[in-house]
Amino acid sequence: MKKLCEMTKEELAAFKQETQSRYDELKSRGLKIDMSRGKPGPVQLDMVQKDFKKAFESDEYKSKSGFDCRNYGLLAGIDEVKELFAQLLEVESKNIIVGGNSSLELMFSFVGQCYTHGIGGCAPWCRQGDVKFIAVVPGYDRHFGIAEYFGIKMVNVPINENGPDMDMVEELVKDPMVKGMFCVPKYSNPDGYTYSDETVERLAKMKPAAKDFRVVWDNAYIIHDLYDEGDNLLNIFEAAKKYGTEDNFVEFCSTSKISFPGSGISAIAASEANIKEILERLSMQIISYDKMNQLRHYMVFPGVQALKDEMKKHAEILRPKFEAVLEILEKELGGLGIASWHKPNGGYFISLNVNTGSAKYAGQLCREAGLTLTGVGATFPYKNDPDDRNIRIAPSYPSEDELRTSAELLCVAVKLAAAKEF
Amino acid sequence: MKKLCEMTKEELAAFKQETQSRYDELKSRGLKIDMSRGKPGPVQLDMVQKDFKKAFESDEYKSKSGFDCRNYGLLAGIDEVKELFAQLLEVESKNIIVGGNSSLELMFSFVGQCYTHGIGGCAPWCRQGDVKFIAVVPGYDRHFGIAEYFGIKMVNVPINENGPDMDMVEELVKDPMVKGMFCVPKYSNPDGYTYSDETVERLAKMKPAAKDFRVVWDNAYIIHDLYDEGDNLLNIFEAAKKYGTEDNFVEFCSTSKISFPGSGISAIAASEANIKEILERLSMQIISYDKMNQLRHYMVFPGVQALKDEMKKHAEILRPKFEAVLEILEKELGGLGIASWHKPNGGYFISLNVNTGSAKYAGQLCREAGLTLTGVGATFPYKNDPDDRNIRIAPSYPSEDELRTSAELLCVAVKLAAAKEF
Repeated sequence: MKKLCEMTKEELAAFKQETQSRYDELKSRGLKIDMSRGKPGPVQLDMVQKDFKKAFESDEYKSKSGFDCRNYGLLAGIDEVKELFAQLLEVESKNIIVGGNSSLELMFSFVGQCYTHGIGGCAPWCRQGDVKFIAVVPGYDRHFGIAEYFGIKMVNVPINENGPDMDMVEELVKDPMVKGMFCVPKYSNPDGYTYSDETVERLAKMKPAAKDFRVVWDNAYIIHDLYDEGDNLLNIFEAAKKYGTEDNFVEFCSTSKISFPGSGISAIAASEANIKEILERLSMQIISYDKMNQLRHYMVFPGVQALKDEMKKHAEILRPKFEAVLEILEKELGGLGIASWHKPNGGYFISLNVNTGSAKYAGQLCREAGLTLTGVGATFPYKNDPDDRNIRIAPSYPSEDELRTSAELLCVAVKLAAAKEF
Repeated sequence: MKKLCEMTKEELAAFKQETQSRYDELKSRGLKIDMSRGKPGPVQLDMVQKDFKKAFESDEYKSKSGFDCRNYGLLAGIDEVKELFAQLLEVESKNIIVGGNSSLELMFSFVGQCYTHGIGGCAPWCRQGDVKFIAVVPGYDRHFGIAEYFGIKMVNVPINENGPDMDMVEELVKDPMVKGMFCVPKYSNPDGYTYSDETVERLAKMKPAAKDFRVVWDNAYIIHDLYDEGDNLLNIFEAAKKYGTEDNFVEFCSTSKISFPGSGISAIAASEANIKEILERLSMQIISYDKMNQLRHYMVFPGVQALKDEMKKHAEILRPKFEAVLEILEKELGGLGIASWHKPNGGYFISLNVNTGSAKYAGQLCREAGLTLTGVGATFPYKNDPDDRNIRIAPSYPSEDELRTSAELLCVAVKLAAAKEF
């Protein structure tokens, strides 16, 4: 395939015409496909529901210690589920708090706590003036949303296949007003990069000027491999221990993409000092999370292996979807010099980088033809992709048929948008 | 029974001696009873679990509109559960947000929103200096906890059988720094008073100096009657409509004491303007609450009548417990002139007011004999009951046997504490 920039005028005109007529044909189909969010598909949820059937039918309501899970109490969760998350996150059980159905809410609450009350003995962020966060870009829109909500200024740091640009991060944390960063260290959202050992080490080694610097370590895709051989991520707390920086990291995860997206359970892992401070706030906020749901999860997932087995079944369903998109990207865009992407080994997204200044227009063309993508620009703070290049693809929800049509439409739109510039 | 203050020295000495030996005997039993919190008892929860069995066993996962409740989405809840709460709270469905397992968390979040972002177009409370709340006393410790957490100064206003002292409230709201109050308008915690029609009218009529004054209307015991003939509470929004003050009230409730304390569902009712502002925050905070649990609740409670029927069954279990305590209070303390209490028609508590300066000591005597009460003082802001008079009794959790022993012990302790003063 010839690169667009190397085509003759005639070739380009023919390319435009052919692409336009393909677009018109796709548009005429009256599609209505939503590829905006990383939602598990119905086939995955049917599978999970089947696996949970016995747990739902069980009359059991007592935790191992005999606690009545139907009633109030046990703010940090039931022991066996604390232990399950401790195994998964490779920390001790005392470093775990089990939450409700949303790790996002735990993160929001944690940032809220730092904002209104401060952390680590420091003044509340709301009393410290213009506090800043490092925003690893492209990244997860809801992380940026939390920072923006609390008026935290975001400074972009680009991600590469090894994780955030650590030279920039190390420079930025010399500023005492830089208070933290959100990281999706494994299968990053949207690129699917896993932080290299060196990146994790350098993060662990950092001594930020701000004593109240906190990394929100959102390990959302910790066991969300698409292949038997998944990526490896160093344990951040193991690494931090060497440098005495454990307090700098607060880890979050959930079963939203293991069990039910709307009805799963979540967890925090943190140093004893952070756990203590977080529990102090939570004890004012809520009496306890849904322990019956914790108990059901324990019945289905009595150990980490059960979680991993479930993820293999999810991968069976997701892998063909990812591969279909990647195959179409390669077939349609390969060699044209107008788009690049990374093949992820896990996670929920494929990140497509197109020609500078053409992503928004490509998104608009998709929308006009009935395909909803994640809002173009949303992978950057303030929904502002300065280069207007990044498009997040969420292949999990549509059926494989819909997905092939969507991917084709997206590629055609990207080509049209690119061709417009020539 | 002769009043303590009218006893002769000899009578008093005999009274003390007899009471002391009863206390010693009770203490020698090595009791271990927890009457600290308003927790439903196991018999209630067994009943609820049985009623929910079919819902747990159901394979249904779609809302009436066909939405997949297992997945992300529908931040404000599924339509049929919004409608259920709308009927219960006598508002329109558009005025409802359905939450997670905790109305306390919704209240915390709402106060947090006012604190960090302001409400009704006003500056955030955290930027307005020393904001204040009216604290209706005695009241619910967790309400006071939220205000204290956010550094909101509390000004005590006593409650009487008609609700808060409205002359004081009307005076206080002339101060623009007074930003709100928590109310438990029906079967108040701990007294079990229901606000009179006049009180509700006067609250609705108020035009506080602060534009961002908000009443947290915690209708925790809305249908929690102990008798067929329960108390009647005016609909606050109906009353407010007459005066154009709907924005001043945000109502909360939950099924924590209808279905499961740890695994129920909660709701907010508010004006359209408040709902809009609350949803703006929630949309940053969480993707959606547990809709599968909402669906199960709808299966068991397809309408308000089903909720009321369930509450009748709870009342069957709770009524004898309340009556046992009241009977013992009357028998042990009646006529002594050292304690007073109100017989509630619903709710979860009995509030015992003892001689000034003797509540803490009575609580200590109970604790030393193995009975845990709600921390004496906790029914006041900053855990400080200025008269040291109020003791909250939570009769729901212990068995009837335990309860009788507890009530007897409590009365003996109250007598000993009172006698100490003579």
